[in-house]
Amino acid sequence: MITIATDFGSPYPAAMKGVLCQRTDARLVDVAHDFPRQDVRAAAFWLREVLPYFPPATHLVVVDPGVGTDRNAIVVRAGDHVLVGPDNGVLLPAARRLAPADDREGYVIEETRLESVEPTGTGTTPRAALGSDDDDGGRDRDRGPASNTFHGRDVFAPAAAAVHDADHETLAELSVLRPAEASVDLTLPEPTLEPADSPADADRAVGEVLVVDDFGNAITNVPGPFLADRDRIEANGEVVPVGETFAAVGVGERLATVGSHGYVELDVNQGRGDDAFGLSAGDRVVLERVDDG
Amino acid sequence: MITIATDFGSPYPAAMKGVLCQRTDARLVDVAHDFPRQDVRAAAFWLREVLPYFPPATHLVVVDPGVGTDRNAIVVRAGDHVLVGPDNGVLLPAARRLAPADDREGYVIEETRLESVEPTGTGTTPRAALGSDDDDGGRDRDRGPASNTFHGRDVFAPAAAAVHDADHETLAELSVLRPAEASVDLTLPEPTLEPADSPADADRAVGEVLVVDDFGNAITNVPGPFLADRDRIEANGEVVPVGETFAAVGVGERLATVGSHGYVELDVNQGRGDDAFGLSAGDRVVLERVDDG
Amino acid sequence: MITIATDFGSPYPAAMKGVLCQRTDARLVDVAHDFPRQDVRAAAFWLREVLPYFPPATHLVVVDPGVGTDRNAIVVRAGDHVLVGPDNGVLLPAARRLAPADDREGYVIEETRLESVEPTGTGTTPRAALGSDDDDGGRDRDRGPASNTFHGRDVFAPAAAAVHDADHETLAELSVLRPAEASVDLTLPEPTLEPADSPADADRAVGEVLVVDDFGNAITNVPGPFLADRDRIEANGEVVPVGETFAAVGVGERLATVGSHGYVELDVNQGRGDDAFGLSAGDRVVLERVDDG
Repeated sequence: MITIATDFGSPYPAAMKGVLCQRTDARLVDVAHDFPRQDVRAAAFWLREVLPYFPPATHLVVVDPGVGTDRNAIVVRAGDHVLVGPDNGVLLPAARRLAPADDREGYVIEETRLESVEPTGTGTTPRAALGSDDDDGGRDRDRGPASNTFHGRDVFAPAAAAVHDADHETLAELSVLRPAEASVDLTLPEPTLEPADSPADADRAVGEVLVVDDFGNAITNVPGPFLADRDRIEANGEVVPVGETFAAVGVGERLATVGSHGYVELDVNQGRGDDAFGLSAGDRVVLERVDDG
Repeated sequence: MITIATDFGSPYPAAMKGVLCQRTDARLVDVAHDFPRQDVRAAAFWLREVLPYFPPATHLVVVDPGVGTDRNAIVVRAGDHVLVGPDNGVLLPAARRLAPADDREGYVIEETRLESVEPTGTGTTPRAALGSDDDDGGRDRDRGPASNTFHGRDVFAPAAAAVHDADHETLAELSVLRPAEASVDLTLPEPTLEPADSPADADRAVGEVLVVDDFGNAITNVPGPFLADRDRIEANGEVVPVGETFAAVGVGERLATVGSHGYVELDVNQGRGDDAFGLSAGDRVVLERVDDG
Repeated sequence: MITIATDFGSPYPAAMKGVLCQRTDARLVDVAHDFPRQDVRAAAFWLREVLPYFPPATHLVVVDPGVGTDRNAIVVRAGDHVLVGPDNGVLLPAARRLAPADDREGYVIEETRLESVEPTGTGTTPRAALGSDDDDGGRDRDRGPASNTFHGRDVFAPAAAAVHDADHETLAELSVLRPAEASVDLTLPEPTLEPADSPADADRAVGEVLVVDDFGNAITNVPGPFLADRDRIEANGEVVPVGETFAAVGVGERLATVGSHGYVELDVNQGRGDDAFGLSAGDRVVLERVDDG
């Protein structure tokens, strides 16, 4: 199985699927193609929350603001899962969630060793042009090199197909991979908890909104246990009820709850929490327990 | 085959697909993930119109404003089809369309008997928190209970996998199901026809807009035969031509036609009927025959 | 494999998938369902750029402003690929890209010979009405004829299933097809190049924006080699840098580059080129080389 996650919208992912279908019989499952555009951190969050629900698979990820630069294309094995994508940190939070450090390993994709992507047709494509006389690993000069702007189709999809069809225990033997010395890291921000390190015992959490989901729920980085045994909290200075479910408050009313990923969310029952709380991804959030006495 | 229909947008459906792929080899087909948010009636309409075109399948439906409340999760068998979703009526119009009453039966999902959904990983998820010490049917305390906000992933997907892999004639034997005494009903509104009950013979129909589709077509609940043998009708007081096809009128012009589901639609050729007629879902529509003499 | 491309949005494509799953075991792959609505030219462009990356397949295409008129439904074989869609030109640019003229052939779908599409159910659908007493090829009168507005479900999906399950070398033997005498043609506009015909040697190109992609890149019809060996060009009178990659300029800055399809694009690094250049699909673009001396 190959899962596919991009910020490409439509129809570019279809070209990637075409390349994958050319090269492998793997089942294809879309994760999302509408990740916030070129937002590596948001994609890293969602991948970390979603990929662990899949069976062992190859996960093809393209959120790649540096496409065409000298950033590497990489492969990360994490337990029985294999992630393929750009070396900008987007894969790492998911990889760390999927497997401990001693069961992860990283590779750089040797792009010039990938079998070149060739569309069916009669040579009428006006590709090539820029950079076409750089060293291109023996590619057909009439067709031109890999594009500089669509590595999802020309680099990552071929690499995902090659990796999928190999045994994930023997990735080191693939000629298209070499061991990675280091990868660009990305860690999602952690909140500051006071006075205790345990969220269940802390009275105050200074965190931030990691992402806003399609429902408008403002998902913070404060662990859910912060809300345990409390009926209300103060969120950025305003008291809001704590609910186990959206329906704990009336339609259109605000609440703090623990989302399906385990973090405190600031929500509105059947409405948009981001609007009601005036919050966007990246915004600071101060949560404080209030005296219920 | 398992079809999937939600109002979740993206990427939450991917977590549901991950769970399904963990538990069954069933083919997965997306129906829609952009049903109008938490609009049970609109989803019920679309499911009734779309699902009958599928071969026998398990249909997983999550439009669930009451997630986390004590509303039941249910299964409805309708002929060779099985529907899985919340007990809020969303499944019933489709079930009634798919099979007559004597070939339908309902079950309640025993949520605590479902195999718990566990993400791959090393225990770093901050789940649990609210409600974690309620009776949780022996679930692993370190992982916490099913979320209160994402039953698509934690309840309905596991139930759909279990139901799919069973014989639909022997659902009663599944330990995760018990017979339903009653379900929340939902009937889509019917128009008032005058002077006759037969739409082909009526002169006046007082109905409403059931949904507006992505093209902006305002789909009413007035049966298509109301338009038979007429060149024009009056819609909310304005005379509009009746056309068999959009192209019966000029580009940008209004018409009344019979949509692909068999109801009268108020449309614009290559434009938006909802805007041109000033109509939204739920709005009252009075259609009257005009004297063509 | 059957690929599916429409401008239907959601959930109408699901009814098409249901019909396909009723009639064939073919793998289904979505190309796009959000092509610009009823924009035959934009769809033709994207299909030409995307379909050649697929292995041999049946490509089901429904962008059909003339649905329900007397326009034909057609099938075009292009090499090992078979395209199915309306006779409005949308299939032809892709067909020409996929195979030379002597390896292409066209057919008209005999709509009345297709097995009628029947939803599961108990006859409660209020279909029929308009046009129901026209000659309908023996269809069940209680169910009514094919809809006049949803040929994707009632004509093109059944035709695609029939074509897929036939040998593409023997399409001529299918009773649902007859040889096409002529089809509506569509050619995407070509730019005027001066003084030379070769883009690499031209100093001036007068073209237009073919489409704007989801990133906001304004994709012109000027072949990429026009940018070869130049550091800057003038685009509609303004000097912009030429870059091999988006990252050749700062975030938010404009550039001209060669897109993944081989044409000159006017883009913004991590921003929207259409907004920055004030361009929409169909707009005229004059590109001129500037003296770098």
